[in-house]
Order: sequence, then structure tokens, then C-alpha cells
Amino acid sequence: MDYSAKTKRTLGNALVGDRIAVHTNGKKYEGFLMPKHSEDPDTVTLKLDSGYTIGLKPDKIALIEKARNVRPQPAPKRVHDSSKPTITILHTGGTIASKVDYKTGAAYPAISPEELSDAVPELREIANYNAKVVFQMYSGDMEPEHWKILAEKVYEEAKSGVDGIIILHGTDTMAYSAAAIAFMVQKLPIPVLFVGSQRSSDRGSADGPMNIICASLFIVKSDFSGVAVCMHGTSSDDYCLVNPAVNVKKMHTSRRDTFRPIDVKPYAKVWQNGSIEMIRNDYSAKDKKRGPVLRNKIGKKVAIIKIRPGISHKELEFYKDYGGVIIEGTGLGNAPVTVLDEYTAHHGKLLEAMGKMSKRGVKMFMVSQCPYGKVNMNVYAYGRAVQDAGIVPLAMTSEAAYVKLIWALGNFPKNAEKIMLENFCGEIVENIKADTFLI
Amino acid sequence: MDYSAKTKRTLGNALVGDRIAVHTNGKKYEGFLMPKHSEDPDTVTLKLDSGYTIGLKPDKIALIEKARNVRPQPAPKRVHDSSKPTITILHTGGTIASKVDYKTGAAYPAISPEELSDAVPELREIANYNAKVVFQMYSGDMEPEHWKILAEKVYEEAKSGVDGIIILHGTDTMAYSAAAIAFMVQKLPIPVLFVGSQRSSDRGSADGPMNIICASLFIVKSDFSGVAVCMHGTSSDDYCLVNPAVNVKKMHTSRRDTFRPIDVKPYAKVWQNGSIEMIRNDYSAKDKKRGPVLRNKIGKKVAIIKIRPGISHKELEFYKDYGGVIIEGTGLGNAPVTVLDEYTAHHGKLLEAMGKMSKRGVKMFMVSQCPYGKVNMNVYAYGRAVQDAGIVPLAMTSEAAYVKLIWALGNFPKNAEKIMLENFCGEIVENIKADTFLI
Repeated sequence: MDYSAKTKRTLGNALVGDRIAVHTNGKKYEGFLMPKHSEDPDTVTLKLDSGYTIGLKPDKIALIEKARNVRPQPAPKRVHDSSKPTITILHTGGTIASKVDYKTGAAYPAISPEELSDAVPELREIANYNAKVVFQMYSGDMEPEHWKILAEKVYEEAKSGVDGIIILHGTDTMAYSAAAIAFMVQKLPIPVLFVGSQRSSDRGSADGPMNIICASLFIVKSDFSGVAVCMHGTSSDDYCLVNPAVNVKKMHTSRRDTFRPIDVKPYAKVWQNGSIEMIRNDYSAKDKKRGPVLRNKIGKKVAIIKIRPGISHKELEFYKDYGGVIIEGTGLGNAPVTVLDEYTAHHGKLLEAMGKMSKRGVKMFMVSQCPYGKVNMNVYAYGRAVQDAGIVPLAMTSEAAYVKLIWALGNFPKNAEKIMLENFCGEIVENIKADTFLI
Repeated sequence: MDYSAKTKRTLGNALVGDRIAVHTNGKKYEGFLMPKHSEDPDTVTLKLDSGYTIGLKPDKIALIEKARNVRPQPAPKRVHDSSKPTITILHTGGTIASKVDYKTGAAYPAISPEELSDAVPELREIANYNAKVVFQMYSGDMEPEHWKILAEKVYEEAKSGVDGIIILHGTDTMAYSAAAIAFMVQKLPIPVLFVGSQRSSDRGSADGPMNIICASLFIVKSDFSGVAVCMHGTSSDDYCLVNPAVNVKKMHTSRRDTFRPIDVKPYAKVWQNGSIEMIRNDYSAKDKKRGPVLRNKIGKKVAIIKIRPGISHKELEFYKDYGGVIIEGTGLGNAPVTVLDEYTAHHGKLLEAMGKMSKRGVKMFMVSQCPYGKVNMNVYAYGRAVQDAGIVPLAMTSEAAYVKLIWALGNFPKNAEKIMLENFCGEIVENIKADTFLI
């Protein structure tokens, strides 16, 4: 995580955190020296007063001036412009708002919403922003109870008359939270976009600013309402994709274009210059007269269990007091229940455990561990036996199924199964178009 | 699953299973009437004596003759051709060898290896084939003990001097079995290709024949040795991909091009006309003097646990007597261990449980639930705490990590952790090229 020896020589006595002025190619850049973050230890990273971060090559650096104890200029005071729409930024934390601990090099969720919107000056041209802190946490730490609180805030803001909401959120569990808000706050009059970033704001490849800009442009310029995820569409700063909250998955650990639509097409592509290409039209148009409906109760605990060679029926039975289990079957929704030989003698017990748990009232649904494609438990003989044991196939992502079951058990405890099979916001995808695989 | 009323009118008194002759466009096709299987209930499906299945449009059908109780011609007796290489087909079951129960419409694994190779007449031109039945099961039912038996058969066949092995295997757990054979039978002198199909052999879109043909061509024409998966590369009958056994994942429940390489490139593209495009050269060339090494012991039980919002430390502790646990973290390998508020008060217990289980000797490794990208537990502060609790990051697919840990505990019980971090057959992918995402 350190600069190369060569870069250190160029930096002289300037240390990470120092305010410096760098003279390069006849220009002078002033800002704070950041820790090395890009793949290239030969790039000096400087955080400018505008909030932007630039990378400079030591070969081209003519002189570095060091000015200790100088603070950056405060951003100009923001004035409400009544000719522009108003967007509420709900801040939950995540990389998009993290800053780096210079001692350990690790990132902490710490930047305030004001700092963040000041750091992206383009936003001032698009809308007025209210920034509110809901949480300051990594999304990997979120619990269903946090969805409930976030849903309340979204509901209140949506009722308050703002033109759109941007939820800054860590990417790790964004697919879960986005689905949760889609189920918990229905009939939304305005767009609610989840925005995160895969690279922290002090890095040259930071994706947060572009994602927030594109989300703002989409809110202001399109007629979309409902919940969606707005993140990079490609690995370059090309365009953002607006993907439906209930059909999106984090497909890559580190790429900026990690969020991909699963078995559906994105709603839109959005460019930073303000161009928007609408790809779908099957959404509700904005309508400020439509009242949002809040149903944010959290039901009994739900589990996700992934089928694998060697799974034991005891692993399923562990969840016998849970409200429900999402089973990630193999392929079309299969599980090892066929008894063929001495090694599969215990498979019968898995089928038996399914039946017993159903009778106890544990709601169990089958999705696939394949990221794409729908389950079909009628193709193979034993898929039917599993259905007879009370497992219901669901044409949904694992994330959406998990969130929906918690929501269904909380808000419709007597009709959870019926609710699970009803399509509320596009989460059930029965007819998959061929050109939605790996896009 | 039934033919449309219109098609039934055309079929007259011909029933599914009847031998019929169809006159269409001046041609006559003889074969057995199959149940309706394609998306289109207006296509008459006929299984010809060649073993192939064709679909015919009722509009174009001039006449249907019915001939009850006629059996298809037996295939010509196969003669060993010493000028051709010899391939062993190890038969384990799966859709590639299933037939349909006309009563229920469900598929059973029942076709014999002889029937299968007779059904693909092109194979006779490529090689001599020995067909051996190892199992007759859906891969969804396979257990680690089956990998052990299959590894023995592969080892014996590889030693016997044959030129290559094709393992017919269901697609559900093919990624697990292929990785298992790659770890259990190393230093292979010849290619060992896993081949399956996503559509049963009685369907017009059956992919099994092309996959077996391409696997045979690759075995005969390339200099590759080692374990790989050979399946459709696109959704049409374009070419097959030969993907490394330890970096492959079933990405779609039903598409024929479901097996995709994860974070790596395929070894090759193979066309049915015999063209082969080698994409990589980082494999061992065939060498019949190289003895295969069999290490097929199965260790203590291993679990896969998927992190999610709401996971309880008790779920991890359930596995306290297991040999190991593969943890599918969120994003870069995160888990909810940060205590921030009343809802995350139990997160500390998850960290504690990790530490306790490590001390008991349970080997725990972190992979990501994102299909692509490697884990990095040094980016966020709490990733380090999780490592301190004994969780070791692994740059591997979840499937490969699970299989390898069972294998490592079985064959190197005292050095399992060291073995997990050693790259045996490309399972550890540290440097991911940008053009390997979603291919």
C-alpha cells in the first residue's frame, strides 16, 4: 500500500496527509497528498480542493512544495435554487462515503453527506440536495432491522414532496437492501435510487461521483418512479445502468460494473453529459399524487441454505424454528433426495426433513444457485417429490426471495405463501429473454 | 407438456411412442413419435432411427402413416479400428443419458452407454470408444464418496493407455465433480473431459451429441492433458468451450451455454467440423509416460455457509465438529462482525464464534458470494479482525474451495491450510484479466 522508492524520492519530505503543491507540465496542482491506492505505486495521488482526486506521474513532476497546516478552502455556501428539483440523499455509509485511515491503510465509513456533495461540484447544477444521515455503516453489517428504519425514512421523504431520493449504500448487501425497500415502500410517487461505489473516494478510479451524478440526472430527467440501483455499466467511466432493485446482483468483488441485471434488462443507460437511453417502459411513471404505502414489518427469521454434494439433513433441520428457508438448489432447483446406493442412503432423510419442517409451518422455497435462469421442478421425477414435501419453486433471485420472505412473514403472516407467488414489483421473472444472460 | 389441439388433429390416431412415417415437403421421415418438448406445442417431434430427433411443422405435414409394433433397426456392429485413437466413456448419468417417462413426462437416467454412442453416428469416424458405467444417477444426488470412486476409475483408465476419457455427467454438480477429479487425479497423461447436456436426448435442441463430438475431437486433435469441462459455448450449436475444471461454474439453470469460465479464459473453442482454436497454452501437454497420481481420500465433513443480512453466529457454530467451513462472504470477503448499534449487537458473537471454532481446529476459509473476482480482506478494517479470528482468504470459486478442502483434509490432514494456499491446477486465480468478466 506504499509508494514506490522512486516516488518517495520525488516526494522528498512530503508525507501522506501533507498539503502540497505539485508543479508538472507547466501547471500547479494544490491539495493533500493521499496514500498510494491505485495499482501503480508510481502515481502520486493528490486530493484537490474541488474534492476530486488526481494521479500525477513522478517523471513529469518538476517540483513539490510543501505547506504544512493549511486547510482546504471551505466550499461555497449552498443556496436553494427554486427553479431546480430537490433530491434527498439518505446516507447509510459504505465505500462511497469512506475515508482511509492513514495509519492502517484500511477504509472507514466517515465522510459526512455535506462533504460528499461538496466533493462533486457538478451536482449543484442538477438539483438542490438535502443530505440526511440514516446510518454510518458498511453494508456488510446491515440487518433486516436496518431495512425497516431505512424504509421509514424513504417513506417520509417520499411523502414530503421531494423529487427523488438517492440512498448512498455499501455495495456488499445493496441487492438485499434495494429489494427490501422495493417491497417495504410500494406505490412510490418518485424515483428512489441506490448508489454506491466500488473504489473509495480518494482513488483516481473512484466511481462514486459519476454514479451520484448519473442517479441525479436520471431522477431529474426521466419519468421513472420506484426503486432501482444506479451504478457503473462498464469498467470505464462510460455510462451508468439503472437496474431494477429486485433483479440485480453483485457479480464481481471489485469491478465498478459489478451490479448486473439478472434475467431482465436494465431500465436505462445514463451518461454523465445528461443523455439517457430508456431501455424498458414497464414501470410506473412519476406521480406526486400517489401516496407511498409503507409495509415494513420484519417477520420471523429466515435462512438461506445452499445445496451441495455432501449436505446433511441436519443442516436443514437446524432451521426448524425459523419462519422460513430459501433453499438454493442445484440447476433447475434440485436437491439430493434420491436414494441410489450406500452413499446416498441419507438422502431420504433430507426429503423427510423437508416434509417434517413443512408440517411444523416453516415456509420453504426453492431458488437456484445458478445466478441466471428460473427454477423448474417439474422436469425431473424427484423435483416433484421435493414439491410434495412442501418446497415451493420461486422464479426469483436468491437475494429477492430471501428479503421477500422476511417481508411476507412480517406483513402477511397468514398468507405468506400466496404473497410469495404474487408478483409485486417484477421480482418474479417467468419469461426470460435470451439476450439477458451475462449482460 | 402436451401437443396443441391443432397438432393432435394432424397426428390423428398416432400416439406418443408409436412408430410413424411422416410425409412432408416431398420427404418421408420414419421414427418414433416423442412427447411434446420444445416451447412450441405445434412442432411434431420424431426420433429417427439414426438416434437424432427432428421437429416437423403440422402445416407442412401431408400424411402420417402409423406402424405399430415396429422396432428401430439395430445399429451396425462396431469394429475396433486400430488406426484411430481410443476414448473411454465413463458414464455417471445425468440428462445427457436420460430418457423420458411417457406417462409422467419426467426424465430418468436410463440410456445405456452403447445406446448413447450408437445415437451419435459421427463418433465412429473420430475414435474407438469403450463405454463403462460408473453410476446411473443425477449429478444433484452425488456425494463426495462418488468422487472418490470416479477418481479411481479415471486413474485406472488413464493408466490403461487409452488416449482420452469422456465423463458423461449431469450438469448440476459437474463443477464440483470436475474439480474433485482434478485434485484427486493429478499428473494425468491424457485429457479427461466432463461432458453433459442441458436438454434431454429426445429434444430437438439436445446439446449432448455436439458436446460429445467436440470433446472427442479435442481429445484426438489437441495436445492438452488434464481435467476440463466441454459444453456449448453459445446458445446456438456454434462451438463448444473447453473450460478448466477448477474455474468453471454453472451460471444458468437451463441454457446450453451454462458453463462459463470464472476469472480465467477457456482453454479452447471446438467446432463440430473439427476446427480447434487454442486460447491458452498454460497446460501440460499429453505424455503417456507420465504416471497419474491418485490421491482420493475424503476428509472430515466440510460446510459452505453463505453470509447474509441476519445471519446468526449459531449457524456457524452448528459446524463446530466439521473439518472445515467455506464462508461465502459478501463482496471482497466481508462478514457482519462490526458492532454499531442494538441490531448488530450479536455481530461480536459471530467474530467470537469464528475464533472459538478456529481454536477447536475447524479450518475456515473465505471466498466471495459474488461469482467473479477475488477476495481481499485487507481493504476494510474488520476484514483484518476476521483474519485474526482464523479465517483465511482464498482466491478461488466457492465450488473449487469446497472440493479442495474436503480433498486437503483427506489427503494432507496435518497440512490442510498450507495445501489450500498452494496452487495445484490453476484453482488459485490471483491476477484476473479484465476480459474474463461475464464471458
